[in-house]
Amino acid sequence: MTTANTTAADTADDDTADDSFYARLEELHTEARWTVEQGAWHPRPASVPMLWRYQDLRPLALRSARFVRSDDSALRVMTLRNPGRGEELATPHGSAPIVGHLYSGLQLLNPGESMTAHRHAATALRFIMEGTGAWTVIGGDRVEAGPGDFIVTPSQVWHEHGTDSLEAPVIWQDGTDDPLVNTLDANFYQLHPDVHQVHGKPVNASLHTHGSALLRPDHRRAQPTSPLLYYPWDMAYQALRDYAEVTDGSPYDGVLMEYQNPATGGSVTPTLGAALQMLRRGERTRTHRHTGSVVYQVAKGRGHSVIAGQRFDWRRNDIFCVPSWAWHRHANDDADDDACLFSFSDRPVLDALGLYAEEASADDADPETTGSAP
Amino acid sequence: MTTANTTAADTADDDTADDSFYARLEELHTEARWTVEQGAWHPRPASVPMLWRYQDLRPLALRSARFVRSDDSALRVMTLRNPGRGEELATPHGSAPIVGHLYSGLQLLNPGESMTAHRHAATALRFIMEGTGAWTVIGGDRVEAGPGDFIVTPSQVWHEHGTDSLEAPVIWQDGTDDPLVNTLDANFYQLHPDVHQVHGKPVNASLHTHGSALLRPDHRRAQPTSPLLYYPWDMAYQALRDYAEVTDGSPYDGVLMEYQNPATGGSVTPTLGAALQMLRRGERTRTHRHTGSVVYQVAKGRGHSVIAGQRFDWRRNDIFCVPSWAWHRHANDDADDDACLFSFSDRPVLDALGLYAEEASADDADPETTGSAP
Amino acid sequence: MTTANTTAADTADDDTADDSFYARLEELHTEARWTVEQGAWHPRPASVPMLWRYQDLRPLALRSARFVRSDDSALRVMTLRNPGRGEELATPHGSAPIVGHLYSGLQLLNPGESMTAHRHAATALRFIMEGTGAWTVIGGDRVEAGPGDFIVTPSQVWHEHGTDSLEAPVIWQDGTDDPLVNTLDANFYQLHPDVHQVHGKPVNASLHTHGSALLRPDHRRAQPTSPLLYYPWDMAYQALRDYAEVTDGSPYDGVLMEYQNPATGGSVTPTLGAALQMLRRGERTRTHRHTGSVVYQVAKGRGHSVIAGQRFDWRRNDIFCVPSWAWHRHANDDADDDACLFSFSDRPVLDALGLYAEEASADDADPETTGSAP
Amino acid sequence: MTTANTTAADTADDDTADDSFYARLEELHTEARWTVEQGAWHPRPASVPMLWRYQDLRPLALRSARFVRSDDSALRVMTLRNPGRGEELATPHGSAPIVGHLYSGLQLLNPGESMTAHRHAATALRFIMEGTGAWTVIGGDRVEAGPGDFIVTPSQVWHEHGTDSLEAPVIWQDGTDDPLVNTLDANFYQLHPDVHQVHGKPVNASLHTHGSALLRPDHRRAQPTSPLLYYPWDMAYQALRDYAEVTDGSPYDGVLMEYQNPATGGSVTPTLGAALQMLRRGERTRTHRHTGSVVYQVAKGRGHSVIAGQRFDWRRNDIFCVPSWAWHRHANDDADDDACLFSFSDRPVLDALGLYAEEASADDADPETTGSAP
Repeated sequence: MTTANTTAADTADDDTADDSFYARLEELHTEARWTVEQGAWHPRPASVPMLWRYQDLRPLALRSARFVRSDDSALRVMTLRNPGRGEELATPHGSAPIVGHLYSGLQLLNPGESMTAHRHAATALRFIMEGTGAWTVIGGDRVEAGPGDFIVTPSQVWHEHGTDSLEAPVIWQDGTDDPLVNTLDANFYQLHPDVHQVHGKPVNASLHTHGSALLRPDHRRAQPTSPLLYYPWDMAYQALRDYAEVTDGSPYDGVLMEYQNPATGGSVTPTLGAALQMLRRGERTRTHRHTGSVVYQVAKGRGHSVIAGQRFDWRRNDIFCVPSWAWHRHANDDADDDACLFSFSDRPVLDALGLYAEEASADDADPETTGSAP
Repeated sequence: MTTANTTAADTADDDTADDSFYARLEELHTEARWTVEQGAWHPRPASVPMLWRYQDLRPLALRSARFVRSDDSALRVMTLRNPGRGEELATPHGSAPIVGHLYSGLQLLNPGESMTAHRHAATALRFIMEGTGAWTVIGGDRVEAGPGDFIVTPSQVWHEHGTDSLEAPVIWQDGTDDPLVNTLDANFYQLHPDVHQVHGKPVNASLHTHGSALLRPDHRRAQPTSPLLYYPWDMAYQALRDYAEVTDGSPYDGVLMEYQNPATGGSVTPTLGAALQMLRRGERTRTHRHTGSVVYQVAKGRGHSVIAGQRFDWRRNDIFCVPSWAWHRHANDDADDDACLFSFSDRPVLDALGLYAEEASADDADPETTGSAP
Repeated sequence: MTTANTTAADTADDDTADDSFYARLEELHTEARWTVEQGAWHPRPASVPMLWRYQDLRPLALRSARFVRSDDSALRVMTLRNPGRGEELATPHGSAPIVGHLYSGLQLLNPGESMTAHRHAATALRFIMEGTGAWTVIGGDRVEAGPGDFIVTPSQVWHEHGTDSLEAPVIWQDGTDDPLVNTLDANFYQLHPDVHQVHGKPVNASLHTHGSALLRPDHRRAQPTSPLLYYPWDMAYQALRDYAEVTDGSPYDGVLMEYQNPATGGSVTPTLGAALQMLRRGERTRTHRHTGSVVYQVAKGRGHSVIAGQRFDWRRNDIFCVPSWAWHRHANDDADDDACLFSFSDRPVLDALGLYAEEASADDADPETTGSAP
Repeated sequence: MTTANTTAADTADDDTADDSFYARLEELHTEARWTVEQGAWHPRPASVPMLWRYQDLRPLALRSARFVRSDDSALRVMTLRNPGRGEELATPHGSAPIVGHLYSGLQLLNPGESMTAHRHAATALRFIMEGTGAWTVIGGDRVEAGPGDFIVTPSQVWHEHGTDSLEAPVIWQDGTDDPLVNTLDANFYQLHPDVHQVHGKPVNASLHTHGSALLRPDHRRAQPTSPLLYYPWDMAYQALRDYAEVTDGSPYDGVLMEYQNPATGGSVTPTLGAALQMLRRGERTRTHRHTGSVVYQVAKGRGHSVIAGQRFDWRRNDIFCVPSWAWHRHANDDADDDACLFSFSDRPVLDALGLYAEEASADDADPETTGSAP
């Protein structure tokens, strides 16, 4: 048995090595696997922990309207790009990852704007940061949403956005699986042949139809992507507070609930999951790590997270990410009020493929550094 | 091929019939199948349509307290017994069916009463008819409920009931699958070794934990019986009204929603399903039939149903049943307000076993008869 | 709390009992539940253990041809009727149970006979006892089978039987869920409008398509009833012997394998399961009991079973049954060869409804009685 | 609405463009999404169609023994690397893709060699090309295999390989999902603490236990990765021939069957599927395309495939690949014998994530080129 962290080739008889052999390997579009590093290893993502302050992003988002016209605002998105990721994933379709194979960006809608309809194989989530009057039409179903509301746009369903507000802009966070679907060579994109959808249905019909945990509509069939498209903040936050009254919570996540597909009790989509978690007054969680990448947006309050030994202080609307297998913990720095983190991740992919793993920190002694957040 | 509705034996050579042959068959605990009727057939239940008026039942329920002591009130139940069913299913355990293999009865709890804990393999549902202050402890989870509230008691979970009211009695409808579980020779019954359960958890914890369609608790696993035990009337009725705003409803059932297991989107238990349906102002449904037995309680309003050609007029708290494969339709006789029917059935059994079938009436000409309800 | 095995009414104040109250209950088609027996209880089936010797049944089966013409031979079945069951389940459709809600009978096909096509909501299994040349056409798929072969006839699929042999009769055992489907008021029966099906497909197409555990056809979809209709004895027995080489077996059942739906790995149908088990040379199993009814046919060898304390000696083609919750064990009485038991049961129903329970005998001291088999 | 294939930025007022804005974007680790190409698009994989001739690879494989010692032969693998893929996926763990996120290589075992045990989160398949006497121990289960046999090595199960032959080497094809698991940042690798596993079980126990489509072992539970580890060629080829007798086959794939997990009827693992398909004498399929990458090994016969308009002639043991969404068709060039293609793919991933799509060629006019294969 070879020693860990040597390569097998080190142990071979180098005298017999034959340059012509390796040349021939290359000629045949093959290569020697035995030259690789051996020994035990675990995930070492290229993605790094990162935080974006809303106070930095907001002015740029507001300025972005100068560069893209209203009817193109589907693309008026400021992509958040992980500094650890090279150019390799900067596809022609503009989906550089925020972490792992997750995409995220900030989208601006100025008063009265609307845009054209399109669809893609990638799945999209929206979490609204500010502004009222926003609407989105998804498969003919018109959703009207405000701050803290969460919206699911399923794979290959036509959608278009706009705002009815005449006074203030809307900014929301997009979260998609474009990098994953692109790297799987399975993405498609189409513009709507009629530019816009017809929507005759009442507003927020999916919430009226699927918004009760008690009763389901008689015609409902289980489907992998949620038939519920709209998750209002008030209802979600109330559910979290109700649950907080009867649970001790998780030592690693405080009081965490997952946005669910009410037709199955599973994740909202087959590729992207989302969660809302409450850190109670002054709560500081223990350290753990797991496979899968997570993007957080601060929905309420202020606090900090320690990710791979690096401290990130956050407040409302800030966005940060945890790469796969990075140690992390969270803290609410307000002793008088709860803090809430919205997050989305590729957890459903890892579960479906049997690749989810997690580990608790034995001594919780992951060192904190201060002031080092970018 | 033999003619329909003759028996195969009619066509055999009777001269060769041999009495000793049939005698020997009987001696060996066998019998000739060819003596049975041939030709096409469909379900012909022994159960008959039936309605029980609450104005008749209520006085008897109130008097029942004289016959059973408080701590035995688990059994202070007036069983509703289908007149078409013979003695065959009157087991020692008192579960004569209301229709098919469904059991139902009215249970009385007088002010301040409580009872001892027990459990059984049969599943029980409760739908509260009148009175406030009622509670039930199910697997250590204390539920507090009022009129119109729906409660699920899963198979083999300890439970006990009582009321905290000092003023008025509580009456609820029990619905169970005892006849089914008994006929499958699979029922068990036990009294709690400590007479009562310990319940330290907050009240209505299952509703706080599983009561949101938007968010699920992080630890939830799919399980065939609902982890949600308590379905308050206000929330259920609101869900029904929300859905009514965006659906045309079913031509056979008006606006119907099923009480669901929020962890799976399926029926509340593997054996019993429940539904709440709204008949809009003056709505009259079309006639259809299906396999499976249904028990209805009028939750709101007044109207009538025509079942197997027989008209049944109903008002709040009345109970009626539809046998398998019986033609039926419903009507709301109030032009100014909606009517709501709560129901429970063995539909999940038929679905699981591949035995559900339904048929719409071609001409909707099922005749009405008046005045013939018992 | 009342003492076990008393009735609640015993403890009530009898002086207050009111005859008019009970009369009124009866008038309203209700009854008092509190008059029933209390205390812990478990399943006490009316069905009794029973064995039918093939040497008794065979002569009668052969004589049955005198009573039913060839084209009616769908009904030329000698029903095996449980002596513990009364008339209550002797429906007009001739499906008195052999045990629980299982039906079984012996069907005779004389040389050259065939019969007309029909279908029903009930599911049927066949296990061939003697004779070669038998065929059955199921949904247009022609199956040709011999002794020990097992055939599945799914719910509502057209089927018809016959034999091509010109020399010897065929006798097989039918097993169906007619009593269950009847008691659920969900059975249907139809004669084929054209009397016979057209079958253009190759013989035993389902075995060619679904007969490999290694490879599945590209078009296969999971379905609750097996797309494999034909399970030849040679292949089944070989699978059992292969498994016996690598397993210790079950202490209660020896080497037991279940006939499976290869599209799901589940039971052959949603209502009926089937199994083949080997008792190795001289093997005697331990005693246990479980909910659910089982019908056995001796496929090979000789031995005995002890059921509810009663000993039943068996040899090839004998049929016996074990009621729900009856203690039982099996023994191979041949020290030089294995014995095999084919069986079918309602286990899939109990599993689907969450009603399966089992218990091992603590001391294995269930007494044997000899000579008492009927 | 913008014209297809322009970028949104083209349509913006360039005069307002602000270099400082874009500089600030970059400073904040963000980028403008509106600079990307618009218009409809579909998958355009970097991977290219490619064929490796066994007559080229075999001599190199045999020479590879000079470079890696016996006990390191886990790594004595010649990786097949897609020419279209850059260095970006050449991870330290040596898993450059053959196509998409699939890895493949040729592994050599010289007479009498064996190697040390290890495990990883990636799943591995083996398809044996030549040599007898090979064995692999997977989770303590010893598999002995020869040419054409297919072996599944599940995620995170210990395994080690060797050959008992004293005369001739063994060469097999490895297929893994390393590139996928790596890119998901979810791979782990460990060497066995005791260097070798203990294996007391009989040889090929999984085949004895799970090798029958008719009967399943009594203890079997559904699990996402197949409990059957060994799929012998003789049994697989026989199943394919049986199926060929009763099916017309697919116009795009001839007679295709999928290696299955017999406990579920699903794919052999959650990430990798495998198939065996027969092209009948002289058969030429029609052209289609689908999402997902496929690696083929010619198991029998000779023929050619046209992939993305490029013709690849193949014979036994040659390996070729089809990138996602590439048009392709196959032809058996032998008019007297069937040809068989073994293949593996990421189809289970696409199915699980809802990303599988396919399209048939309308006119089948995909042009052939000759002689252009590398």
